[in-house]
Amino acid sequence: VERVIRDIDGGITAPAGFRAAGVACGIKKRKPESPSAPLDLALIVADSPSPAAAVFTTNKATAAPVIVSREHLAQSNGMATAIVANSGCANACTGDAGMAVARAMAAAAANAAGCAPGQVLLASTGVIGMPLDLSKIRTGVSSAARELSRDGSGAAMRAIMTTDPFPKAKSVAVDTAGGTFSIGGIAKGSGMIEPRMATMLGFLTTDARVAPDVLHRVLRRISDETFNAITVDGECSTNDCVFLMASGASGVSVTRDDDPALLDGLRAVAGHLAREIVRGGEGATKLVTVIVTGAATSADAWLAARTIANSPLVKTAINGGDPNWGRLVAAAGRSGAAFVLDRASVAIGPVQVFDAGVPHDERASAAAEIMQAKEMTVTIDLGTGGAHAATMWTCDFSAEYVRINAEYRT
Amino acid sequence: VERVIRDIDGGITAPAGFRAAGVACGIKKRKPESPSAPLDLALIVADSPSPAAAVFTTNKATAAPVIVSREHLAQSNGMATAIVANSGCANACTGDAGMAVARAMAAAAANAAGCAPGQVLLASTGVIGMPLDLSKIRTGVSSAARELSRDGSGAAMRAIMTTDPFPKAKSVAVDTAGGTFSIGGIAKGSGMIEPRMATMLGFLTTDARVAPDVLHRVLRRISDETFNAITVDGECSTNDCVFLMASGASGVSVTRDDDPALLDGLRAVAGHLAREIVRGGEGATKLVTVIVTGAATSADAWLAARTIANSPLVKTAINGGDPNWGRLVAAAGRSGAAFVLDRASVAIGPVQVFDAGVPHDERASAAAEIMQAKEMTVTIDLGTGGAHAATMWTCDFSAEYVRINAEYRT
Repeated sequence: VERVIRDIDGGITAPAGFRAAGVACGIKKRKPESPSAPLDLALIVADSPSPAAAVFTTNKATAAPVIVSREHLAQSNGMATAIVANSGCANACTGDAGMAVARAMAAAAANAAGCAPGQVLLASTGVIGMPLDLSKIRTGVSSAARELSRDGSGAAMRAIMTTDPFPKAKSVAVDTAGGTFSIGGIAKGSGMIEPRMATMLGFLTTDARVAPDVLHRVLRRISDETFNAITVDGECSTNDCVFLMASGASGVSVTRDDDPALLDGLRAVAGHLAREIVRGGEGATKLVTVIVTGAATSADAWLAARTIANSPLVKTAINGGDPNWGRLVAAAGRSGAAFVLDRASVAIGPVQVFDAGVPHDERASAAAEIMQAKEMTVTIDLGTGGAHAATMWTCDFSAEYVRINAEYRT
Repeated sequence: VERVIRDIDGGITAPAGFRAAGVACGIKKRKPESPSAPLDLALIVADSPSPAAAVFTTNKATAAPVIVSREHLAQSNGMATAIVANSGCANACTGDAGMAVARAMAAAAANAAGCAPGQVLLASTGVIGMPLDLSKIRTGVSSAARELSRDGSGAAMRAIMTTDPFPKAKSVAVDTAGGTFSIGGIAKGSGMIEPRMATMLGFLTTDARVAPDVLHRVLRRISDETFNAITVDGECSTNDCVFLMASGASGVSVTRDDDPALLDGLRAVAGHLAREIVRGGEGATKLVTVIVTGAATSADAWLAARTIANSPLVKTAINGGDPNWGRLVAAAGRSGAAFVLDRASVAIGPVQVFDAGVPHDERASAAAEIMQAKEMTVTIDLGTGGAHAATMWTCDFSAEYVRINAEYRT
């Protein structure tokens, strides 16, 4: 056996060389029923400057912390020492004032971590267009610095949640011939119950020794297969980002960007976190794996998968437990991907409800039974005879989603 | 004054040279509470072979009637004598058998209209994947042929409705220096209350004299500004089509595809029908005009408008009457269009809630008041300084939409 991947405890501080903390600094509103102030500032610090990689939102309405993090990583040639993040305020659409606050937030974290400001990555999540209170951030960073610990992952994770229905963390040990290293991660998702929440954050750590350029390519690849392969409602926020830091403290070196041990380990952590984000999506009651096969090109496979995974008619049918293959066929047909109706097929779980262009409505009740479960797979073959495929994860579309997002944001 | 456009009665038979009928032939199920069988077959016949143009769905899961209509129009060099359409069954995803029924349906209509089968355009709307009963179609065509009349537009219109909440018709007279001609139209929309309904049909007539190639270019242009500029849920059906026939019976000739009288007249008819389709969208409570300005290219303007008009978060905010400019900015930012946040603006009606990158939340209550109305306009400037713009029409996204589409289709 070349490698073994084992679940371990510890989240983002499972890998050696990282400490974390989560504190309350008064940005997030306290709920009337809550006994204490909610955690809203997370600090993650590496023992020494470490290779770091990031993927950022493609939204052109980019939030200030995203702009500053991107600058820092470019200037440091892919090295970082600390991540600082707050919830409750996205510091997005806040203009020059917001940029100044983001830079000061990085400076405060640098001071706390004993590094240069350019060694800090930062993230914010919460309401768009609201000014971020710098004095609260400074107080929060100071107290977080005092609480940094090797078991601070849980507090850091809770500090980046907004209204996520449950926390999301994962860590694994990867046993290889050259030794054992570990990978940890925390994420927050799309519980956009308070409108204008700007949303997806993922923080990953490893104690493998990986050079910055390799780390960057590995993170891009893994993100495409995990965080970029999920959808709740097709919306891409102003603040989305994923950071990955490698402390090297395990002593295990990874030198290639196709190293299967690092890729599989990261896939286990990032894939779990990504699917948990979907499972905790607004109003979601079902987690659906959408597999597209028989595509003429890889781009076509992704295009069809993305169109199906975001189709309101597909997502409402899943909500209703309706094995409505017509909607899947219509979504694939309008996606722009090459599609041959007479050879196309649709399966709900293992049940072929549309096979080589022929409906099998006599199997509808078997398919409907599969759709009662909390998790299911739908497979669509585009009928082109091509060998390309793509897998995405989505959730159903419920009346609760509308209720959550239609409520006035008072 | 170069031209005057006046509303007139008559719908699709307002223009001289056309007769229409709508009959019941047993394809659409009778509702238990209904005293009579619902109309489900429409026949529209020109007095003589007439220039005709069509725009069809771009969905690659193309329904049989769409394939046959496209063939006929290509073979006849843009001439047609009759339109036959049924509701209750889309004849989509029905394979070779469905193609044979579509050809036989055209032959029956040709026999009734006294023309060649290649002179018939056909359309079907209703459930996908269900076989279309040819004997019922033949019976229906025979009785429709007997009932053809100069005031048959209303019956024809009702015969193409599925579960549209209200009928959609419009006709205008266009007074020009060269004489008066008229334009009429009927349409059915997206009341997809019965799942797998395959959906949008628009039939337009005019008694202007227009050559087939000019008619084709005019219809494409007008469709892009009207039927292609609306969205209910971003779904494009397997059966969508718009037909336009020109009898020439008014004696008024139009020779140019930029003729303002014909374009404005068609815009009045097709624009009205398109907006009525949105107003009658599933679960819709509000009609929203989305105007994008300041785009670097026309393609960018349409891309941003389409992304905003289909955004679940924008549409739920409109449902809740929430002047949530952050969602509009985020949708524009993720659309792929060039976007300059610091110069971008958002207005709800006349109220600038985000102006050159600066939030004006003190105007939120004024904007919220505007959003109480059944109709509103939102305007987004992309901030690039470009002069390109686009206008789309959309509706809100309600819990009722989910309820309608999640209900199991038995």
